[in-house]
Amino acid sequence: MHALVYEGPGQRVWREVPDALVEEDTDAVVRVEAVTICGTDLHILRGDVPETTPGTILGHEAVGTVMSIGPGVRRLRVGDRVLVSCITACATCAACRAGRYGQCQGGGGWILGHTINGVQAEYVRVPFADTSTHPVPEGVPDDEVLMLADILPTSYEVGVRNGEVMPGDSVMLVGAGPIGLATITTAQLFTPGLLIVVDPAASRLQAAKALGADVTLDPTTEDVPARIADLTDGAGVDVAIEAVGIPETFELCTSSVRSAGRVANVGVHGRAATLHLESLWIRDVTIRTGLVDTWSTPTLLNLLRRRKIAVGSMVTHRFGLSEMEHAYDIFERPAETGALKVAMFAEHSST
Amino acid sequence: MHALVYEGPGQRVWREVPDALVEEDTDAVVRVEAVTICGTDLHILRGDVPETTPGTILGHEAVGTVMSIGPGVRRLRVGDRVLVSCITACATCAACRAGRYGQCQGGGGWILGHTINGVQAEYVRVPFADTSTHPVPEGVPDDEVLMLADILPTSYEVGVRNGEVMPGDSVMLVGAGPIGLATITTAQLFTPGLLIVVDPAASRLQAAKALGADVTLDPTTEDVPARIADLTDGAGVDVAIEAVGIPETFELCTSSVRSAGRVANVGVHGRAATLHLESLWIRDVTIRTGLVDTWSTPTLLNLLRRRKIAVGSMVTHRFGLSEMEHAYDIFERPAETGALKVAMFAEHSST
Amino acid sequence: MHALVYEGPGQRVWREVPDALVEEDTDAVVRVEAVTICGTDLHILRGDVPETTPGTILGHEAVGTVMSIGPGVRRLRVGDRVLVSCITACATCAACRAGRYGQCQGGGGWILGHTINGVQAEYVRVPFADTSTHPVPEGVPDDEVLMLADILPTSYEVGVRNGEVMPGDSVMLVGAGPIGLATITTAQLFTPGLLIVVDPAASRLQAAKALGADVTLDPTTEDVPARIADLTDGAGVDVAIEAVGIPETFELCTSSVRSAGRVANVGVHGRAATLHLESLWIRDVTIRTGLVDTWSTPTLLNLLRRRKIAVGSMVTHRFGLSEMEHAYDIFERPAETGALKVAMFAEHSST
Amino acid sequence: MHALVYEGPGQRVWREVPDALVEEDTDAVVRVEAVTICGTDLHILRGDVPETTPGTILGHEAVGTVMSIGPGVRRLRVGDRVLVSCITACATCAACRAGRYGQCQGGGGWILGHTINGVQAEYVRVPFADTSTHPVPEGVPDDEVLMLADILPTSYEVGVRNGEVMPGDSVMLVGAGPIGLATITTAQLFTPGLLIVVDPAASRLQAAKALGADVTLDPTTEDVPARIADLTDGAGVDVAIEAVGIPETFELCTSSVRSAGRVANVGVHGRAATLHLESLWIRDVTIRTGLVDTWSTPTLLNLLRRRKIAVGSMVTHRFGLSEMEHAYDIFERPAETGALKVAMFAEHSST
Repeated sequence: MHALVYEGPGQRVWREVPDALVEEDTDAVVRVEAVTICGTDLHILRGDVPETTPGTILGHEAVGTVMSIGPGVRRLRVGDRVLVSCITACATCAACRAGRYGQCQGGGGWILGHTINGVQAEYVRVPFADTSTHPVPEGVPDDEVLMLADILPTSYEVGVRNGEVMPGDSVMLVGAGPIGLATITTAQLFTPGLLIVVDPAASRLQAAKALGADVTLDPTTEDVPARIADLTDGAGVDVAIEAVGIPETFELCTSSVRSAGRVANVGVHGRAATLHLESLWIRDVTIRTGLVDTWSTPTLLNLLRRRKIAVGSMVTHRFGLSEMEHAYDIFERPAETGALKVAMFAEHSST
Repeated sequence: MHALVYEGPGQRVWREVPDALVEEDTDAVVRVEAVTICGTDLHILRGDVPETTPGTILGHEAVGTVMSIGPGVRRLRVGDRVLVSCITACATCAACRAGRYGQCQGGGGWILGHTINGVQAEYVRVPFADTSTHPVPEGVPDDEVLMLADILPTSYEVGVRNGEVMPGDSVMLVGAGPIGLATITTAQLFTPGLLIVVDPAASRLQAAKALGADVTLDPTTEDVPARIADLTDGAGVDVAIEAVGIPETFELCTSSVRSAGRVANVGVHGRAATLHLESLWIRDVTIRTGLVDTWSTPTLLNLLRRRKIAVGSMVTHRFGLSEMEHAYDIFERPAETGALKVAMFAEHSST
Repeated sequence: MHALVYEGPGQRVWREVPDALVEEDTDAVVRVEAVTICGTDLHILRGDVPETTPGTILGHEAVGTVMSIGPGVRRLRVGDRVLVSCITACATCAACRAGRYGQCQGGGGWILGHTINGVQAEYVRVPFADTSTHPVPEGVPDDEVLMLADILPTSYEVGVRNGEVMPGDSVMLVGAGPIGLATITTAQLFTPGLLIVVDPAASRLQAAKALGADVTLDPTTEDVPARIADLTDGAGVDVAIEAVGIPETFELCTSSVRSAGRVANVGVHGRAATLHLESLWIRDVTIRTGLVDTWSTPTLLNLLRRRKIAVGSMVTHRFGLSEMEHAYDIFERPAETGALKVAMFAEHSST
Repeated sequence: MHALVYEGPGQRVWREVPDALVEEDTDAVVRVEAVTICGTDLHILRGDVPETTPGTILGHEAVGTVMSIGPGVRRLRVGDRVLVSCITACATCAACRAGRYGQCQGGGGWILGHTINGVQAEYVRVPFADTSTHPVPEGVPDDEVLMLADILPTSYEVGVRNGEVMPGDSVMLVGAGPIGLATITTAQLFTPGLLIVVDPAASRLQAAKALGADVTLDPTTEDVPARIADLTDGAGVDVAIEAVGIPETFELCTSSVRSAGRVANVGVHGRAATLHLESLWIRDVTIRTGLVDTWSTPTLLNLLRRRKIAVGSMVTHRFGLSEMEHAYDIFERPAETGALKVAMFAEHSST
C-alpha cells in the first residue's frame, strides 16, 4: 500500500510501505476513504515532536471501511463504515474509565500518526478498534464526518466545555485557524450572547463572521484589550478561549477575562507563559488545559446527522489520496492558498 | 474609643480615635469583644497595599455585640452577638446575587481594615450589616468563632472547594501558616485519602500532623517532587493547594498535580509566576484563584456548633484589646514565638 | 386608579381601587405600561388558590416606569423603565442568598397578584424593588420583554436547566401552552438533537413546529409511548419536561425517560401522581420540581437584546389596559380564540 | 465443585455442580475465598425476581484468587487476589463509557447470581474480568474488603452521592439494615452536620449510633415528622435517603425534605409510591433513583487501605463455605440473630 511517511524534519513522502495488518486481538484494519491534515502534522514535520520517529506514517483523522478485525473485536464488523478518531481508547484503564481517553494509560491516547503509524495511507491498523472508532451516520458526506475526527470534539471539549460556555455568555476566541473556526461552531451549541474572535488574518475573520462570530478584531490594527473592555462594560469576557499556542495570546486571555470567568486553553504550546498572579489571585479565575478525549464524538455525530450543526464550509480543498504531497503544499501556506481544512479521498471510495 | 491605626509603612499605634457611628441606613455599630490579626494586616503594614491609606484602622476578623443599627437594618437587633466577616456584601449587585460577595460591586467586598476602618478597635461600623455578619451560636467560645471570620471560610472556599477535594483524593498543601492549617481542617470535611503538607518550619509541620496531615515534607531537607511522585505512584496529586504566595510554591503545585488534577491558589501573590504550558497544555489541569466570598460561613458555624469541626488549637496567644501592639509584636515573629493566631479580648467582654 | 380585582371564585372586575403607594422603605411604585395574564390567574379565579383572598388585584407580569421609591431603594431611580418579575426577592434571607428567590423566606417569593396586590392595574407597589425588577433594554418592544416576567425564566430554569438539557439530547415536552412554547424556545439555547412536543391541540402543535420542535405528537391520535420508543431506538428520551400539571402527563414523563435521564416538572399540580418505583428504582432517573427563581432573567434579557432569542410570536392578542376583562374572556378560551399570550397596554404608554 | 443453588421459591441447597470454566475470551475463573449474602438473595428466594431461573447459583459479593483467564484478559493475572464486584462491566458500551456500569448494555450490569451463576460457590466464572474485579489491597482483612463488593459502593453512589450530601447538611436515613448502616459510614465521608436514622429495630438503631448517627428515631414510638421538624427548625432535612423499599418510607422521605432538598432512593421497590406533586411541585425538590455502578469501588478500597473508613463491625457472623445453608438460616432472621452481614470463608483460604 501507499502512505505519507515522515522521513525526518522537513521530509514527507507518499510512497510504498508494508500493508497494515491486524497485530493485536482488538485491532481492526480500516481502508482509508477520506482523510485530512492537521496543524499538528506540520509540527511533527518541523521536528518539534521528538516521540514521532522517522518512518512513521502521519495522520489521525480519517473515514473508511473496516476490512479485517482481530478476534477480540466485539462491536465492529467487516464492512462497517467508521470514523477513525484522533484518540485511541483502551477503555479499561483508570483514565479511560473516567472518560479521560486522551490520558489513556493502557496503550491508547493520541498514538495514530504520532507514536504508531497513522491514517494518511491507503489502509491503517486501528488498535482498540471497538472503542476508537465511531459508526458513520447515513446520509452525511465523508468530508463533513471527517471534521469530527479531531477539530470538532477538540474545540467542543477543550474549548467550549472546559470554558463552561453558557447561554448569554460573552466569549472571546483568540485564533481563527481550523480549530478556532470549529470553536465558533461548537460554542454556538450553547448560544453565547456575544462571540468575539481575534485573529490577524482578514480571511479568517471573514470566515469567523460567516460561521457566526458577532464581533471580529484584528490585533494588528485594533487595541484588543480596549475593545474587549468596551464590549463588556469594562468587566471582561465570561470565557476566553486560546486557540493559537503562544504566550502572548494566552496572556491576552488571562487579562481579558472577567472576575469569576474561565480561560480554556486549546492551543499547543512550546514555551512557558507568564501568569500574572499578582492581579489574578484575587479575581476568582479558572484556567483549564486539556487534550481532547473524544467523549463528545457520538453527540457531535448525532447533531451532524440531524443537521443541527454545520461543518460543510470547513473543507476548502479536495484531492485524491495519491495527491497527498500536493495537499500538504496547499495546507502549509494558508495565507496564500486560503486553505482551512484539506481533504483527500481514496479513488476507490466513490465506487 | 481606641483602635489600632495604620500610620504609614511600618507604623501602627493603639490610640484614641473618633467613635464608630452609624453612617448609612444599613450600617450597624458593633462592640468588638474578640479580634485577631491576619497575615494581610502585616502586608498592609509593610506598605504593600496602596489602597489602604494612613489613618485607617486595621483588622477584618472580629466577634462582638450589636450596639446600634441604621433604619434599613432588618435582621439584626441591638444586643445580638455577631461574627463580623472579613467580607462585606451589599447582597444586591450582580456579583453578590451570584454568591460572589468577595467581588461585590455595590460597595462591599474586602473593605474592613482595607478601604474603610476595620475591627481592631473597641467599636466598628459594619456596612450592609444584615448580610455581612453572622449570629454567634450558643456555647461556642469566641476565639473559636473568630477563626470563622476569615481563615476557615478562605481555606474551605478558595482551597478545598476550588480544588474540588473529594473523598479518597490525594491532596498536597504547600504552606502551613494559619491559612494552611485551616486548610488541613477543612479539607478533612471531605475525607481525602492522603493529605501531604509541605512547609520549611518544623513547628508548623508538627501542628499540621496534629491537625490530621498524613505526611509532612520539609522542602529544605527533602526532595519534594520525588516524594510526591513516590507517594502517588508517579501520577502526581489529585489536588495541590498553594497557601504561601510566591512563584516557587505555585510552580511546585502545577508541577506536582496529576493529569486531570486541580490547583487551587489561596496565597496572596505580589509577583507573576511562570506557567509551564509547554507541559501543561496536554494534561487536563484546572487552576483556580479566588478571594473568599464567605458563602460557607453559616455552614462552618453550624459544623462548629455541632462539634464536627475543631479549631480550638489555632489560637496560640491571648491578650487584652489594649495590648494590641504587643500582640502584633508576637504575631510578627512566628518563628520565634510559635504564634499561629493571636486573639485579643475586650476587657468588658468577660463581664 | 383602576385594577383587575379578584372578587371571589369566578368573579373578576376592572374597577376603581385605592392608589398604589410606597409603604416600605424598599418599595417602588411602578406605572404599568404593558401587562399579561397567566394561566395561574385562571387557577386563582377558579378558587383553587386559597391564599389569594377576594379583593386582591391579580397579575404578576408587567413592564412599566418607576414613579416613586422608598428611601431604602438604592439602584432604581424614578423614571427607570423596568420589568416587574413574577418573583419578589428580599435578597438577604438564606434562600435568596442561595439564589432560590422563589423560596424567599424574607417576605418575597411569588407574592404579586397572589398574597399582595398584583400588576393588572394602572400602578403597582413592588416590594424589594431593587432586587425584584430588571432594567428594560433599549430597542426591544415591551410585549417581548413581557415574556420574560414569567414564562421564559420559568421554562428555562424549571424545565430546561432542571432537566439538564445538553447539546444533542432528545427532549420530550408534554404540553404546548404558553409555558410549553416558551420551553421550546429556551431548550434550543442548548441545541438538543431531537425536540418532541406532545399536545392534543393541533394549533399548539403547529405553533410548536414553528418555534422549532422537530417532532409533534397528538396523544389523542397517536401511541405516544410507541412513538417515543421508535424515535429513541427504544431507549427513551434524555429529558422529559412536564408542562401540563396532571398525573397522566407526569406519568408519561417518568415512563418515557431513558435510564439515567431527567424529568423536569414545570406544571402546577393539584393532585398526587403515581411514581412507579417498582420499575424506576433501578433506572438512575432524576426527577426535579421547582418554582421559578428568576435568576436567569438578566441572562434572558441580554439574549433578547442581542436578538439571540425570539419571543415575538408569543403574544397573539393585544388590548388596552381598560379592556382587561375582555382580554380575560379571550385568554380563557384558547381553543376557540387561538390565544397564546394576550398583552394589555396602558393608553398613555404610547404617548 | 459445590455451590448454593436456587432451586425455585423457598428452595436453596449447597450441592455439587459442574465446575466454573472460562467460556468467553474475557472471562476469568476465580476461586472464592470469602463471600457474603445480600438481602437481594432473599428476594430471589422468595420468588420475587422472575429473571433468576431455578438452577442458578446465587451471590454477587466475593473475594478470591484468579485461577484461570481467557486470552482476551489483559490486566488480571493468574494468582491475583481480587474483589468480585456485584456489577459486571463490558466497559465498551455507551452506558459503560458514561460510567453507568449498572446499566451496561453489552452483557454486563447486575448479572452474577441473577441471570448467570453467582459467587456463592467454590469457584465462579467472572465475565469481562478486567473491568469487573478490583485488586485486593495488602493488609486488609477479606471480610472488610467484602463489604466493598456491594453495600459500600451502593450506599455511597446511590445514597450519598445521588443525595449530594455536603459538609454541614442535615441527612435523614430511613432504614438501618446493612445497606443503611453502610450509608451511615459513607455519608460521613462528607461530614454532614446532623445525621438522623429512622428504623423500628432497637438493635439497628444502636448499631447506627455506634457508627456515627447523631440522632436515632424509632417510628413505632416517636412522631418522626414532628421530630424532623423539630431538629431542622421546621425546614426539613437537606437530604433524605430511603433504604427500605416500601411506599411508606419513600413518602416519609419526600415529606421530610426541605425546599431545594434531595431525596435519594436506595431501596428496592416492588410497588408504586404516591408522589404528592400537589405540594412538591413548588418546592424545588430533586429525587433520584439508581442502581450502583461501582465506579467508586477503587476510591473506597483506597480509603479502606488507608484506614480512613471503617467497616470492621459490619460482619456479625462467620462460617465456612460449606456452612452456607446455615449462614442463610442466620441471615434470614436478623431480628432474632442480630445478624447484619454474614461471611463465609473457604476452608482453603487460610492456607
